[in-house]
Parts: sequence; C-alpha cells; structure tokens
Amino acid sequence: MAKDSLQRRRDIALGFGAELFYDTPLEIVRGEGVYLYDNDGRRYVDMYNNVPCVGHANPAVVHAMAEQQATVNVHGRYLHESIVTFAERFTGLNHDDIESVVFSCSGTEANEVAIQMARIVTGNHGLICTDAAYHGNSELVGSLSYLWIDPLKSRGVRAFPYPDCYRPLAEGLSDGELCEAYLARVETAIDSLKTEGADLAALIMCPIFANEGVPDIPSGFMTDITNLVHREGGLVISDEVQSGYGRTGCWWGYETTGFRPDIIVTGKPMGNGLPLAATAARKDFVDAFRSKKDYFNTCASTPLQAAVGMAVLDEIERLDLLRNAAEVGTRLTRELKSRIDLYSAIGDVRGCGLFISVEMIKDSDTREPDVTLTSSLSDCLKDKGFLVSHSGKFDNVLKIRPPLVFSHANTDDFLVAFDACMRDLDG
Amino acid sequence: MAKDSLQRRRDIALGFGAELFYDTPLEIVRGEGVYLYDNDGRRYVDMYNNVPCVGHANPAVVHAMAEQQATVNVHGRYLHESIVTFAERFTGLNHDDIESVVFSCSGTEANEVAIQMARIVTGNHGLICTDAAYHGNSELVGSLSYLWIDPLKSRGVRAFPYPDCYRPLAEGLSDGELCEAYLARVETAIDSLKTEGADLAALIMCPIFANEGVPDIPSGFMTDITNLVHREGGLVISDEVQSGYGRTGCWWGYETTGFRPDIIVTGKPMGNGLPLAATAARKDFVDAFRSKKDYFNTCASTPLQAAVGMAVLDEIERLDLLRNAAEVGTRLTRELKSRIDLYSAIGDVRGCGLFISVEMIKDSDTREPDVTLTSSLSDCLKDKGFLVSHSGKFDNVLKIRPPLVFSHANTDDFLVAFDACMRDLDG
Repeated sequence: MAKDSLQRRRDIALGFGAELFYDTPLEIVRGEGVYLYDNDGRRYVDMYNNVPCVGHANPAVVHAMAEQQATVNVHGRYLHESIVTFAERFTGLNHDDIESVVFSCSGTEANEVAIQMARIVTGNHGLICTDAAYHGNSELVGSLSYLWIDPLKSRGVRAFPYPDCYRPLAEGLSDGELCEAYLARVETAIDSLKTEGADLAALIMCPIFANEGVPDIPSGFMTDITNLVHREGGLVISDEVQSGYGRTGCWWGYETTGFRPDIIVTGKPMGNGLPLAATAARKDFVDAFRSKKDYFNTCASTPLQAAVGMAVLDEIERLDLLRNAAEVGTRLTRELKSRIDLYSAIGDVRGCGLFISVEMIKDSDTREPDVTLTSSLSDCLKDKGFLVSHSGKFDNVLKIRPPLVFSHANTDDFLVAFDACMRDLDG
Repeated sequence: MAKDSLQRRRDIALGFGAELFYDTPLEIVRGEGVYLYDNDGRRYVDMYNNVPCVGHANPAVVHAMAEQQATVNVHGRYLHESIVTFAERFTGLNHDDIESVVFSCSGTEANEVAIQMARIVTGNHGLICTDAAYHGNSELVGSLSYLWIDPLKSRGVRAFPYPDCYRPLAEGLSDGELCEAYLARVETAIDSLKTEGADLAALIMCPIFANEGVPDIPSGFMTDITNLVHREGGLVISDEVQSGYGRTGCWWGYETTGFRPDIIVTGKPMGNGLPLAATAARKDFVDAFRSKKDYFNTCASTPLQAAVGMAVLDEIERLDLLRNAAEVGTRLTRELKSRIDLYSAIGDVRGCGLFISVEMIKDSDTREPDVTLTSSLSDCLKDKGFLVSHSGKFDNVLKIRPPLVFSHANTDDFLVAFDACMRDLDG
C-alpha cells in the first residue's frame, strides 16, 4: 500500500512515465558491495548496475567524496593539481595516442563533446552508428539512438546493421563473407550520407555493442570498419560508457574486441555514482576542440570529480577487479552456455567479462525472440533476490552487468536461482 | 615556478585552451563559507561562484552527501522516497502551475529537456533567444549561445536584441516606446523563423539576463514578451541556472522581473557542487515529454541528488539566505551606484539581489566599453583578495555573484579594495 502511494506521488512529482523496473517496482533503501536492500529489509544481489563498479557504498569512495567536498569543490578555471593528476592517470590507461581529456558530467555530455570534436577535426558532418545503438539523450546524441531515430529529422545520420553471428545479415556465409556483408552495409550508410552532401565525420559505437545485446562479431570486423572509416576521412569514437573501466576484464572494450579508436568516451562507472564522464583523444584533437568551442562545464573538471575519480581507480586496482571481471565473468558465461542444451528457451549466451547476454527465443529453428519470457525471467530472478534487466534490439536479451565486485560465490547462488526460474518458465 | 609547471601539465592533460581566470591563474586548495584559499595560504573573498550558494564546504551539505553515498546511491528506475519528496519540495517553490520535474546533471542537460519538451508540447520547432545569451554547450543548446552562433548552422533559431535601458535600441524613446521597439524586434525574429517554416516552439531566456550584464529592462517588457510568445503558440522557458535559488532575493528570477514562465530550468546552485539540475513544468507538459522521449539519465534522480538537494534547500532556509541576498545585495548595489559620480570609468551599476553588474566605459558620452579596464579591475581585486569576473555582450561588465552567505562585513571589506583599485586604475 505504502509503495502504491509512493508510486502515485512519483507519477505526479516526476511526471507519468518515468520508467520503473519490474512489474512490481522495488523500493531500494540501502546498498553495500554487490548487495541492495529494499524497504522490507530484503537483500538482493545486484547484477545490473555498472555505475557502482567498486561496490555500493564503497567506503573509500565515500571517504574521498566527503573529504574533498569538505575541503574545496569549485570549478576548473582555477588551477587544481588533483584534476591534472587525474587527467594524466586517466589518459595513461588508454592506448598511446590518447593524451588529453575533456571532463563532463554524463555520457550524453561526453558523446556531445566527442561528436563536436570529430566534426571540428575532420571538417565533415556525417555520423554513422548501428541500428540498435543508444548513446544518450541530447538532441544530437539522441538522433543516434534507435529508440528515437526519426528518419525525417536525422539529417547527417545513418544507421547500419550491427554485426551479429547469431542473427546474421545473410545465411550460409562463412565468417569472412559475413564480415564483408556487414562492411558493405556500412559503406552503403556512408554513401547515403554523401548523397545529402555530408562526408563522414565519425563512426560512434560501443566496442562490445552492449545495447545491441553483446553479439559475437565476425572476425576482423572491428579493424576493418576502423580502416574503412579512416579511408573515408572519419574518426572512430569508442563509446565506453558501458564497456569501459574493467567491465570486460580489460580497461577498455576496444582492447577486448581489438581495434584502435580515435576518441574514447566514458561515463557511468567513473564516479561510482558521482556524475563524472570523459572524452579523451590525441592532444591536437582536444586542442582543436577547445580552440573552436570555448567549452566550459561548471561542475566538471572539479576537485570533487578528481578525488572521487582517483578513489574509484584506486579501488579497481586494489581489489584487482579487472582480473575478477575476467575470471568470474568467464566462469558465469561458461555455466550459462552449458544451459543452452538444457532449456529450449535459451537461444544463445554471449559474454565479455562481466557483461553477459542470454538470448531468449520461442523456437530454436526460427530463433523468434521471446520478449515475454525474458521479462518474466527478469521478474522471477528479482523475486529470488537477483537483479537483472533486459535489452537488445528485440528486448529479448537478459542483461547481466553486475558491479565488478561480483564474486564466484554470487555466481553459485545466481545459478541456483536461474535454474529454478528456468524450470518454472521454460515451456 | 611550481604553478607554471602545473599549468604546462594542464595544457597537455586537459588540452591547450581550457580556460583559466586571471592573468596569473590562482591555485585554489581550500574553501570555507565565502572564502577560498590558494596554495600559499592566502585568503580570498569569493564574489564570483554561485554554485556553492550555501557556502564552500558547507558542513550540512558534506554530511548529507557522505551519509547518502554511504547508504545507497543508485539510479531512479527503482522507487526512492527521497527523490519524490525532493521533487515535491522543489516544484512547491515555484508558481502554482509548476507540478512536475525532470532531474538531470547540468544546466545544459536541463535546457535540452526544456527545449525538447517545448517542441513536443507545441508541435513547433522554432526557438528565440537574446543576442548575448548563453544556455549551455550541447549542439542544440550551444546554437542558442552568442559565443557559438553560426547563422549558417542555426536552422530554427533566431536571436533578438536583449532589452537594455543603458544601451537602448534607439535613443530618445520613452520607457514605453523602448519596450515597444524591443518587442518589435522579437516579432521580427519570430517572423524570420516562419519564413523558413519554423513556427515558434519556445523563447528561452535568463529572467535577469545574467550573461547580457543584468540590464535594466524597459517596464512591461517581461509580461509583454510572455504574452507575445503565447499568442504565437510558443512556450516561455526561464533559464534560472544563474538567477534562481535565492540569488535575486526571491527564489526565482522570474519573480524579480515579474512574469510567469511555462518551463523552469535550474542547475548550478542546486547541489552546492554536486552535479544536479532540473526542468520543471506543468504535469501534462512533463507527461508529454516522458511519453515521447523515454528519457533516462543514469546519475540523475538518484538518492544522492535528493539528499544533497534537500540539504541545500534546508541551509538556504536555515540561514535565511533569500533575505540576506536581498539586504546585502541591495546595500552593495547602492554603495556601488554612489561611485558612478566618483569614477568616470563606471558607466552604470545594476543589481538583482546578489547579482551585481558594474559597467566599465571609456567615455561617459559615447559609453564605449572598456574591456581592458574591466579585466585589469578584476585582476586588481584578485590581488587584493576579492574574486570577481567579467561578462556582458562587450565583456566590459564586472560580474559580482558571490555565494549567498556573502555578508555586510564582506561588503565593507570589498568596498575598500574596490576604491583602492579604482583610484589606481581610473584614468
């Protein structure tokens, strides 16, 4: 009853349609490590949230945040040693070409900077992205998001089919032929841009295609598309908001899928809950952006962002979370893969470290997506104390993306719950 | 030397051209209340920063931030009582029509929401703003900013001359005639939009025209422009990022300049340094936005934003900061006005609570802006321990915008320094 009343108040105060997870929404009142607790004191294993990458209520992050806010937190047009040190440390995590960084407050803002930068550097205007991408919610960045794309309004933007070995563009092709088929569609998108006079400024993509459902990618596609974009005069933006910061077992998704982007964007996990995002690139690219745009972001590049950002990096290193993501993620993926033969509704299991997708289907021959089952499975797991969600182009992919502190013991517990739900739900 | 070296490192890590204040930049290492301290332990009275509205390192804000981050801080697709309570309290500060709110992480994001909302509600696309406005740094919002406007790329955007009694659109007009003259230019902007097929979606303006230099506004202009925009089918967006949250002695700038906006945007001071911004409007406007856009912002609408946002409101009320802004601001404005006759370089002094502009000129007849003197005065005041900046269309306006805890005693000290600088600089 109290929850109904809270939800009614929320529908007024935040407007009707502010999204809530689950048929019966959760009221979350406490968190610790990988666990969240609801208003009835019930404990859940968080297997969805990538923001609290070093754990909910991580004490080192709380301490850094409180100490810095109690010392000073003011904008970046004064000198602050900490923000420079953080910027140096951040760029140092990337490949050698990445020298400079523009901080901001959200992935949306960081992608805005990346696209504006690419357009300034290349002198071109056109953008390409996949047909199931999401990169943020501003008008520009939203025009790259499959939820929002309105062809009539998306001047200068084209989408191409995301690479996928499970639902391939064409049947009966070898891995190499499939790669060629996808690249041809990318070329089509670029050619279509040119017909409206927009040469290519940038390809923007998540390096593991997180919103697309973490598909298996035809061999060679990532380096080939990078080369293609460069030949066309464009830059490659790697949107690492979901894939970066240790998620895949590497610092960056682009290391996992093997290519060399020109601009790196990251956000969510950087601040473990403090709004903090970044756009990093070669120094001359960042210089060109700054010279043209006079960019300033009041609450970014602050001592607070620096202190919290450093604490998060310290914790990732201290807790050896890249290794944890690789080891626990690999095992969980393997265990789930072994269930493809047990449950007919599981079509495919794919993973990159601690980002794992379980594709739910109605029929193994047609591979028809089972959206209802995916949603039911998510609700069943919630009722058993495990929080996941669903995504993918057809919304039939169970999305498993826990804080990086998710353990082998959590994996064991989850598999028991998963099997119980699947036995109940798998017709 | 150490500072030079830090600046060189900064030019690499953040890119060359990341703006710094003052000829010799300050390295700020600590803050408390209205004071900032540099790396040599020197104390400055902060008369520029509106973000730390309840004071640098405000202990109540630090406590709320640390306690919430140590409890839970997770996204808004779970229920959280605190974010609903904060939203109710926030909308309650506004005029009666304002019922619902969309939280975000920056003024840029909040203005994006406002414009997208206005376009959805009206079904129109056109936007008007003043010719010296700044509303943020995304591509859409940046197209409304005088620093960035490129007529070739600003489809659907027109600028009109900001209302100003000191540098009026035409000489020799009565107050009423001047108002009519400005309104005619607004009509011209709207008509120009129509010639490219864009009916009016919104007027966006700061209600005290902060970036324009806080001009004195011809009587009746604010209500007349609101009525005009409504007749044309558009909405009025009040960008309260600088003018709101007690700055003018009222909660909102629109109360001070006397009109009734349809959409309210606020940002900077809301979180006293935590990224926190909001777009508030009638419930049916917010519902329409949510139904069309499926808006989600990971680090916004969180328990952390709610806890810090509530602590800031508590402190504004506990410290009676609206009254303080009105009383101290009025006195400081009066004192500065009395110096117009003392120093020939002061052309005009204008104030709205604790937002005060001092317009520096070369000649009282021509009123030619004195940009060099403005900059020198800002540097001189810094050397004497008072931090201000400059703005305005001609960058010749000393911008005084201290934390709301700025006191009468601070005013006394400042006036001594101001007089000393003016005696040195005033040719």
